[in-house]
Amino acid sequence: MIEGSEGVSRKGVLRYGMVGGGAGSFIGEVHRKAAAFDQKNKIVAGSFSRSYKNTKSTGRSLGIKEDRLYKTYQEMAELEGQREDPIDFVSIVTPNFLHYDIAKKFLENGINVVCDKPLTFTYEEAHELEKLAKDNELLFCVTYTYTGYPMVNHAKELVKNGKIGDIRVVIGEYSQDWLATLEEEKGNKQASWRTDPDKAGRANCVGDIGSHLENMVSFITGLKIDKLCANLDKFGEGRELDDNAEILVKYKGGATGVYWCSQVAVGHDNDLKVRIYGTKGSIEWEQENPNKLKLSYVDKPTEILTRGRDELYPKAAQLSRIPAGHPEGYFEAFAVIYQKFSEAVLDKKSGTSYSDLTIEFPTAKDGAQGVYFINKTVDSAEAGSKWIKF
Amino acid sequence: MIEGSEGVSRKGVLRYGMVGGGAGSFIGEVHRKAAAFDQKNKIVAGSFSRSYKNTKSTGRSLGIKEDRLYKTYQEMAELEGQREDPIDFVSIVTPNFLHYDIAKKFLENGINVVCDKPLTFTYEEAHELEKLAKDNELLFCVTYTYTGYPMVNHAKELVKNGKIGDIRVVIGEYSQDWLATLEEEKGNKQASWRTDPDKAGRANCVGDIGSHLENMVSFITGLKIDKLCANLDKFGEGRELDDNAEILVKYKGGATGVYWCSQVAVGHDNDLKVRIYGTKGSIEWEQENPNKLKLSYVDKPTEILTRGRDELYPKAAQLSRIPAGHPEGYFEAFAVIYQKFSEAVLDKKSGTSYSDLTIEFPTAKDGAQGVYFINKTVDSAEAGSKWIKF
Amino acid sequence: MIEGSEGVSRKGVLRYGMVGGGAGSFIGEVHRKAAAFDQKNKIVAGSFSRSYKNTKSTGRSLGIKEDRLYKTYQEMAELEGQREDPIDFVSIVTPNFLHYDIAKKFLENGINVVCDKPLTFTYEEAHELEKLAKDNELLFCVTYTYTGYPMVNHAKELVKNGKIGDIRVVIGEYSQDWLATLEEEKGNKQASWRTDPDKAGRANCVGDIGSHLENMVSFITGLKIDKLCANLDKFGEGRELDDNAEILVKYKGGATGVYWCSQVAVGHDNDLKVRIYGTKGSIEWEQENPNKLKLSYVDKPTEILTRGRDELYPKAAQLSRIPAGHPEGYFEAFAVIYQKFSEAVLDKKSGTSYSDLTIEFPTAKDGAQGVYFINKTVDSAEAGSKWIKF
Amino acid sequence: MIEGSEGVSRKGVLRYGMVGGGAGSFIGEVHRKAAAFDQKNKIVAGSFSRSYKNTKSTGRSLGIKEDRLYKTYQEMAELEGQREDPIDFVSIVTPNFLHYDIAKKFLENGINVVCDKPLTFTYEEAHELEKLAKDNELLFCVTYTYTGYPMVNHAKELVKNGKIGDIRVVIGEYSQDWLATLEEEKGNKQASWRTDPDKAGRANCVGDIGSHLENMVSFITGLKIDKLCANLDKFGEGRELDDNAEILVKYKGGATGVYWCSQVAVGHDNDLKVRIYGTKGSIEWEQENPNKLKLSYVDKPTEILTRGRDELYPKAAQLSRIPAGHPEGYFEAFAVIYQKFSEAVLDKKSGTSYSDLTIEFPTAKDGAQGVYFINKTVDSAEAGSKWIKF
Repeated sequence: MIEGSEGVSRKGVLRYGMVGGGAGSFIGEVHRKAAAFDQKNKIVAGSFSRSYKNTKSTGRSLGIKEDRLYKTYQEMAELEGQREDPIDFVSIVTPNFLHYDIAKKFLENGINVVCDKPLTFTYEEAHELEKLAKDNELLFCVTYTYTGYPMVNHAKELVKNGKIGDIRVVIGEYSQDWLATLEEEKGNKQASWRTDPDKAGRANCVGDIGSHLENMVSFITGLKIDKLCANLDKFGEGRELDDNAEILVKYKGGATGVYWCSQVAVGHDNDLKVRIYGTKGSIEWEQENPNKLKLSYVDKPTEILTRGRDELYPKAAQLSRIPAGHPEGYFEAFAVIYQKFSEAVLDKKSGTSYSDLTIEFPTAKDGAQGVYFINKTVDSAEAGSKWIKF
Repeated sequence: MIEGSEGVSRKGVLRYGMVGGGAGSFIGEVHRKAAAFDQKNKIVAGSFSRSYKNTKSTGRSLGIKEDRLYKTYQEMAELEGQREDPIDFVSIVTPNFLHYDIAKKFLENGINVVCDKPLTFTYEEAHELEKLAKDNELLFCVTYTYTGYPMVNHAKELVKNGKIGDIRVVIGEYSQDWLATLEEEKGNKQASWRTDPDKAGRANCVGDIGSHLENMVSFITGLKIDKLCANLDKFGEGRELDDNAEILVKYKGGATGVYWCSQVAVGHDNDLKVRIYGTKGSIEWEQENPNKLKLSYVDKPTEILTRGRDELYPKAAQLSRIPAGHPEGYFEAFAVIYQKFSEAVLDKKSGTSYSDLTIEFPTAKDGAQGVYFINKTVDSAEAGSKWIKF
Repeated sequence: MIEGSEGVSRKGVLRYGMVGGGAGSFIGEVHRKAAAFDQKNKIVAGSFSRSYKNTKSTGRSLGIKEDRLYKTYQEMAELEGQREDPIDFVSIVTPNFLHYDIAKKFLENGINVVCDKPLTFTYEEAHELEKLAKDNELLFCVTYTYTGYPMVNHAKELVKNGKIGDIRVVIGEYSQDWLATLEEEKGNKQASWRTDPDKAGRANCVGDIGSHLENMVSFITGLKIDKLCANLDKFGEGRELDDNAEILVKYKGGATGVYWCSQVAVGHDNDLKVRIYGTKGSIEWEQENPNKLKLSYVDKPTEILTRGRDELYPKAAQLSRIPAGHPEGYFEAFAVIYQKFSEAVLDKKSGTSYSDLTIEFPTAKDGAQGVYFINKTVDSAEAGSKWIKF
Repeated sequence: MIEGSEGVSRKGVLRYGMVGGGAGSFIGEVHRKAAAFDQKNKIVAGSFSRSYKNTKSTGRSLGIKEDRLYKTYQEMAELEGQREDPIDFVSIVTPNFLHYDIAKKFLENGINVVCDKPLTFTYEEAHELEKLAKDNELLFCVTYTYTGYPMVNHAKELVKNGKIGDIRVVIGEYSQDWLATLEEEKGNKQASWRTDPDKAGRANCVGDIGSHLENMVSFITGLKIDKLCANLDKFGEGRELDDNAEILVKYKGGATGVYWCSQVAVGHDNDLKVRIYGTKGSIEWEQENPNKLKLSYVDKPTEILTRGRDELYPKAAQLSRIPAGHPEGYFEAFAVIYQKFSEAVLDKKSGTSYSDLTIEFPTAKDGAQGVYFINKTVDSAEAGSKWIKF
């Protein structure tokens, strides 16, 4: 919707490129819609596929000029890095196994990065990216979508402001059923790479959705994991990676948690749910009904808060765009992540020094922590579901 | 996300303008986000406010060139109509009382129209717009947002395919609580004009939300109202227009309905809910939980269908963009309305004759029917809540 | 479960008899379980059926002595009335059309009465019973079961204490689907008599379940109906009585109501639901989830109260027997009605004068009002769904 | 509803006695109501308290003759065992630590036993009771109340009939909040003994409610635990016993489970919930909404079954007493347990040999398994939350 000439970036509008997300990809279009949602970002470059034909047709349909459609991500990173009007950031939406190389390349060429999760295969790689971004004063966002919901941010503020007291118990669950049958044998592209260790890494279910649980709990509560004990199951016949997991968690300070994630839980679509119990109250939030929040107190009736109707903390309220009862969903949450990131990039461009930025979007550090969590979980499971120090 | 030059409209992308929707307006930004959502529409012109200053600052922030920011809608309609590259359509998002004049002006200048609802004050005006569009082979969309939800479209197909048998009873309710107190006296701009007969017309609650009930039931069931009996209340002290209404409806063929709409129903945000009972089954859908549909049968267990998981009729399935459990909300439904309209405009541009179009978006005819319903409802109430032939 | 000798009634235990409720009856056993629940009542006499064989076998299985098993209700009323140790009350659980004669006979013989609803066919009959009870200082209970739920009583107290302000709107619905098909032609005994004007009176659906709506709203709010406008449908082919109804209500003082009752609403079991909207708040209660109450306020978050957890008014709290989360259901609500009635009878027996009794159970007066409501509703419908003064 | 003379037990009615359950006890009255509910059992003897005064007043209010009110349970067991018309069974409703001695005494005196859970402190004691009952051909019921719900029995049949395929994952949770604060310091009698190791045994939360999870899962699925890993928390300051626990479970055959039980989960009343995921479908049931069951399939829409409306397996359907939508609750489920037990006792009395009995009520064996589970759980926790072979 944006400016007339790509050569002059008006204040408030960023130009970005994308790696991955060509025809046949689901998540690429989601990223583009999310980036465009609040009219802060315009896509101007891309290397959408290993097939240059796909890149060109995808690029054309997005109105990208031919000279910024690249055959490889390497070429894209280098040439964009040399332009006078380079992209302000790149969005990496490829399968997991490519994240590290691509992100590294763009960082080395001075370009901010948005990357899907899980960030990398190993913690070392993730940490390296984190360090690389920091050293080059570049911004790095890992798209933990679900922390973009206003009510999740309100939950975080409720905890921070002591409304539920000291946290005792966390129950996190993320259940789906799309891998209850062997979809990978039926030509489902996503099922294929996610269940393939070469492309997904050491974990499937824990990597894909378990990591959201870790991030969500960490985001809302600020709790640090002290140790964990994980059971990983491979129910689909012949599967090499997990499709179901239960993880017992002890946090520093004494709180206890259980995370259950599953892709074989028949009847569940995308059922991310967190419940947090403190000494004074509790919070319950469900991703499939994201505009509400259940808030209970030791000594008062349980409340059902709704976005738009009830008074939210400013940090949460500002993320909401429409009145109560007009549901905001997945795209709007995703757009919040892009919005937060874009604002940080704009701040940086307008001279705010990197270290002064109040960075509130999920960063490479969060991404690295997620990779650490995934690996510790697999370590525990491989050791016979033993407790592992975090 | 669109083309490089505004002079050449690429296939698949439309240029549009907007009247109303300047700084301070809520619905203008919603329309713009909805129009942009599927990357089919680019805003290139506007007269956003009676204040030209507001128009200019709004236009600038949207990247619109100065020469297409107009002081008045009249000027905009005339000048755009004369351009070689005119806007493909205009979106009218002003308060109700201006719809008629503005829409008429754009139709007279050969420009397709998207207009908020209720369409006009009187049925005669609405019908005139409908006729004017038809005579000039122009497309006219009235934004009954809620028919954009995939599950609503599935409900329509379920009825059409006889899954619930012959309809016996319809229960429609649309409850809000934002006018439970006298917001119009507290500087709430929307409350002010909606409760002002000069700006809102003969009805407030029935006009604003009752009309959605009429449209929703009509859309899903195809039922024609035979007669109705309405009670309108003005609970807010000193209010001249209704803030609560109950309407008994008899449809042609013998089915019965009750519509309840209210802006004083404490505890409800935007609670549009329809239940349709037939001889073989029933359907229940709620706008605040729009990705699900409850389907009951005389002789089988009740089913809860979810968008993305369960098999939908193709006409409904195609309106969904993301997998099950990733909530689509209000913006996405609104974007579906724009998508349907834009596709019809593109069809027409590519040579399909007006009369051959399979027009599925809500049209001026639907808008006129809504205005008719509003007026009949007020007629009934003013006659002492008597039954009125429709 | 009670005393050793029937000759000496210990303080706190009442002896009662029953008319109707023999083998094959559903409601008779419900009454007996409800009466016995709190160990205040012991059945000692009965005329359970027109078939004396049925009466004897039913009576035997209940441990009733042969000499108190009667061939006719007339004989039972007379002989019990003459005993030194007569029954303290009789429970009448026959089809509607027999209520009047039987109740009258027992009242004339000095025996307190519990009677199922609707009380009689005509208001005159109902009023006569009311007067007869009063003149003879006898207690008369009409079993409007649903007012026995603790949360309903809490709702009543909330209204009485001004928590939701002045009432503006009442939405009452009672939906079932057991007559969606022609059960009366399939040998369903209850369907047969309920759809037969000779046995059910002028109304089926309104009489059976609409009357519960009238009573429930009246119980909670204390509102008096000023006028009503009713649509009655007979959807089942060939039915002589209504199986669906919508009733618009205007209460004295200006509040508005809608009652919908249906036996053809596919997907609903016994879905009695009332919503009451006031100037300051609102209440929502559902019979199928009776241990909770939704309470909303103009200026505070919506609360979900649960029986046992949240502080209830004493009048409501005393009706609850078990801790929060241990569901009380239909039998327990029914038992509350018997409990209230039994306590009043015990009070009277212990010397409290009739006029001093704080009678809180549903009385003949409530029963008469229900019959009045049924008849006014049918009057309105027969007059072409016109408004009728109440 | 019972017989005239206690000397002659009519077919179909049992006489029982009770130990514990005097004034001030909650559970005693629940047992009595449940036992009486279906008019199969009459209380005729008791030793309700260590205080003989309490026993006498409680007994009198229940209509029990003076000579069958006993000072001690020992006396009661011996004297009842010697009568010509002894009680048919005794109900033991004392705190946990007394169960073993009392149950043993009655078994030794030839009297069938109903006992609250958990059955004993140690598995050895529990197993001894089980053996003692078997050797003496006596019936022994442990009141796992929640398996009395019709929908739980339907769930069991669904699993048994292969409707959800092979079980993969079990998620069991039982959350309450009554011990979120230190109730034991505020004079709450039940809180006092439950948190006291001398009276409650090695576990509080796991013993009281965790054992219900074990029993419920075992009842529905028939799964055998292979090993478990438990984390037990003592959040209440100074508590010696657990008030929260998470237990990872591996079943024989490869299925996985997680049990979470908590008494500090603010906002939960008595929230027992089980979810069972198989290869073909899944089942979800909640105790606070016990008349419904959620049933999902891999390839069909999710169904919501309701008791009374949908066709249940006969074993489940027979446990239901009233039509759909008339909620049955905790008392009715409890009464089902008594009903099953009473029928077994009646069968035995009428000559069916002990070994021929189709015993379907929860037995001493189930009770012993519960005690085993509790002890293994504590063993695991005390060993540092290690995996323990079951």
